[in-house]
Amino acid sequence: MPLTITDVVARDIRFPTSRSLAGSDAMHPDPDYSAAYVTLVTNDPALQGDGLTFTIGRGNEICVAAIKALAPLVIGRTLEGITSHMAAFWRSLTAESQLRWVGPEKGVIHLATAALVNAVWDLWAKSEQKPLWKLLVDLSPEQLVSCIDFRYITDALTPEEALTLLRRNEPTRAQREAEIRRRGYPAYTTSAGWLGYSDEQMRQLLREALAKGWTHFKLKVGANLEDDLRRIRIMREEIGPERRLMVDANQVWDVDQAIAHMKALAPYNPWWIEEPTSPDDVLGHATIAKAIAPIKVATGEHVQNRVIFKQLFQAQAFHFCQIDACRVGGVNEVLAIILMAAKFGIPICPHAGGVGLCEYVQHLSIFDYICVSASLEDRMLEFANHLHEHFVHPVVIENGHYKAPLAPGYSATMLPETLDAYAYPDGAVWQKA
Amino acid sequence: MPLTITDVVARDIRFPTSRSLAGSDAMHPDPDYSAAYVTLVTNDPALQGDGLTFTIGRGNEICVAAIKALAPLVIGRTLEGITSHMAAFWRSLTAESQLRWVGPEKGVIHLATAALVNAVWDLWAKSEQKPLWKLLVDLSPEQLVSCIDFRYITDALTPEEALTLLRRNEPTRAQREAEIRRRGYPAYTTSAGWLGYSDEQMRQLLREALAKGWTHFKLKVGANLEDDLRRIRIMREEIGPERRLMVDANQVWDVDQAIAHMKALAPYNPWWIEEPTSPDDVLGHATIAKAIAPIKVATGEHVQNRVIFKQLFQAQAFHFCQIDACRVGGVNEVLAIILMAAKFGIPICPHAGGVGLCEYVQHLSIFDYICVSASLEDRMLEFANHLHEHFVHPVVIENGHYKAPLAPGYSATMLPETLDAYAYPDGAVWQKA
Repeated sequence: MPLTITDVVARDIRFPTSRSLAGSDAMHPDPDYSAAYVTLVTNDPALQGDGLTFTIGRGNEICVAAIKALAPLVIGRTLEGITSHMAAFWRSLTAESQLRWVGPEKGVIHLATAALVNAVWDLWAKSEQKPLWKLLVDLSPEQLVSCIDFRYITDALTPEEALTLLRRNEPTRAQREAEIRRRGYPAYTTSAGWLGYSDEQMRQLLREALAKGWTHFKLKVGANLEDDLRRIRIMREEIGPERRLMVDANQVWDVDQAIAHMKALAPYNPWWIEEPTSPDDVLGHATIAKAIAPIKVATGEHVQNRVIFKQLFQAQAFHFCQIDACRVGGVNEVLAIILMAAKFGIPICPHAGGVGLCEYVQHLSIFDYICVSASLEDRMLEFANHLHEHFVHPVVIENGHYKAPLAPGYSATMLPETLDAYAYPDGAVWQKA
Repeated sequence: MPLTITDVVARDIRFPTSRSLAGSDAMHPDPDYSAAYVTLVTNDPALQGDGLTFTIGRGNEICVAAIKALAPLVIGRTLEGITSHMAAFWRSLTAESQLRWVGPEKGVIHLATAALVNAVWDLWAKSEQKPLWKLLVDLSPEQLVSCIDFRYITDALTPEEALTLLRRNEPTRAQREAEIRRRGYPAYTTSAGWLGYSDEQMRQLLREALAKGWTHFKLKVGANLEDDLRRIRIMREEIGPERRLMVDANQVWDVDQAIAHMKALAPYNPWWIEEPTSPDDVLGHATIAKAIAPIKVATGEHVQNRVIFKQLFQAQAFHFCQIDACRVGGVNEVLAIILMAAKFGIPICPHAGGVGLCEYVQHLSIFDYICVSASLEDRMLEFANHLHEHFVHPVVIENGHYKAPLAPGYSATMLPETLDAYAYPDGAVWQKA
């Protein structure tokens, strides 16, 4: 009897993070980190797939509704039937003839697609008894390419080019795998720089982070220039002139504002400006990148799909590709973006934080290093110290590095007691509030 | 006592159009035209605002869920409080600090925003006892500009430039209004060219349309080249060499495919190719436009917001701006796009068809002509002969023109018996199915 998906359970899980202002930024002053959480039930009681998409509170229920709308496309399918035609499976979700109208491939319906697709990959990895990154690393270049829907990107990357990129570093995969298992993957921290923190709180957190060995630090900016100048000065004072300081505006500026603001912050030597303007504005990012050099531009956490990423590459609009594991349509689309990044020579520095994103993106960067980029130069994983205690296999950070996850799956399985207590609105945590 | 919105009712209304293949195209073979339908209840029993967003069936319930998520931002507000700060009201919906995460300003949450915003404009127009276009025409340039959120577009259009554009044609508004009231606004028809129709059905419908005085005809293409060549030949035979023929691929091609396909269709002299590729691909449209000249490029019905439109203008990526009344965030954002189009010299030819879109876009084109473009050259409203019988004030077409609507409001109020019978899944029409 083949392993078959017999049901899809979608849950609205929310954490009341707005009470502490952890995660606050110029555009999102009061997030309640949340997950639209999917469980794929199978005919094997010992095996299920878990996946999620990340939101910041209100609206999570809309993603749950979208997961329920997509569920009939998954229920009744066998794992083998899905994994042997991965690109076709992915397109069956993203191009469903009526549902695509409310996207296509963007916003709520694409976030929901991500949760489901990530759950399928989790199920696959668990059934192979491998962490997701190792499942990917053990696929041949041909198998990896067969997971990608190349629709709308062939003018930037063909399947043949993707194969060539993957074959290039295939002979040396094993040595990089050994290195990652030994050393982990380098990270940077956002935990000290949230916009809602006081100056004293920030200094305290920075000193703690320095003591733990962090070398790259991110600061939220964009509220007003005076505050930004004071806060960036404090951060630079604390971390010294050599360590890297990145700033993140979370989309608050227009193009001309971004340029003016970054010129004012330039004396503090920021390495990159993240999300200077609308994530939809490819040409705007290109204009900003040109105007503020040598400060670099990073974006991606709100970039909706591979088509916008393609144009960011084509227009030389950014220097760091911050893929998100849940914003685009799950692992399949992430593979397409990682391969385009390799072709255009742009490093992958995934977006993390939130809830579950750190657990996810560690797999993606490790795969990128072993199979695609073969480089750690200018590459780091974001880390924020939130909510890891809710996962069965939380991330492990040592000396500023993510340790390679070894448990089977894609690491986003939450503890059963979390799924009960944080269920919205009926869980104990919300009933108390 | 000021007029106050006391409740928001959201309904899932669907029409089983897939049974007839009306509306079928290469990407959407079996649409059930649907509306996520909003009613703003007020403290005046005689006055309510109705609005909708258009979808094609499954997924409509997700838009309804999103309307319910946005509703608390509208309930309790007075009409005067909203209309006296229209841009701020609009931003309060699109930048809600948690809900924006599941967009921002795209897909489901933006479709839902459109339904709500359109309902507010309907309420305003009804309270002024004017059709929506006349409400807009009677606003001063300053008032119109104050309805627009310029966030993310100031590098293409500033408020000052918008004012200048509106003042340019202000002295001659009255003569164009008189002309439109007399002659109506020119239209073209899509009703003969749906992909699911047989050759015989198409010939029959084309002859009927010619007899009614239509001069511009649209053909759905993109299934396969052989069928497309046969069908475009039939259409050209029926309409003769002079009348205009437009083709519409509904996003099925990659960039290189679009170029090759259109070179094959070029001998039949298509005027434009609509939606040749992904609606997100600004640079792809620019590449196509350059390669297939003198055939022109049209797009817009799936362009998610003003930021993508801005880039289509900046990149000279299209020749016809097909705004949709429901895809972007309602009248406020449409105003921004109409003004950018005027600045960049691109004609507005709105997307219609579906359900309610014809009722909506007639107001937008009439406003564009009277207040902004002051030209009918290369401008036409799409018309499809679907589902108008469900509206209290359906569009009226005469001799290939939309007659100017005269009833107060934005024309999207459905008949009470329609709201009952077509409610999904409990209405009589769906219970029978």
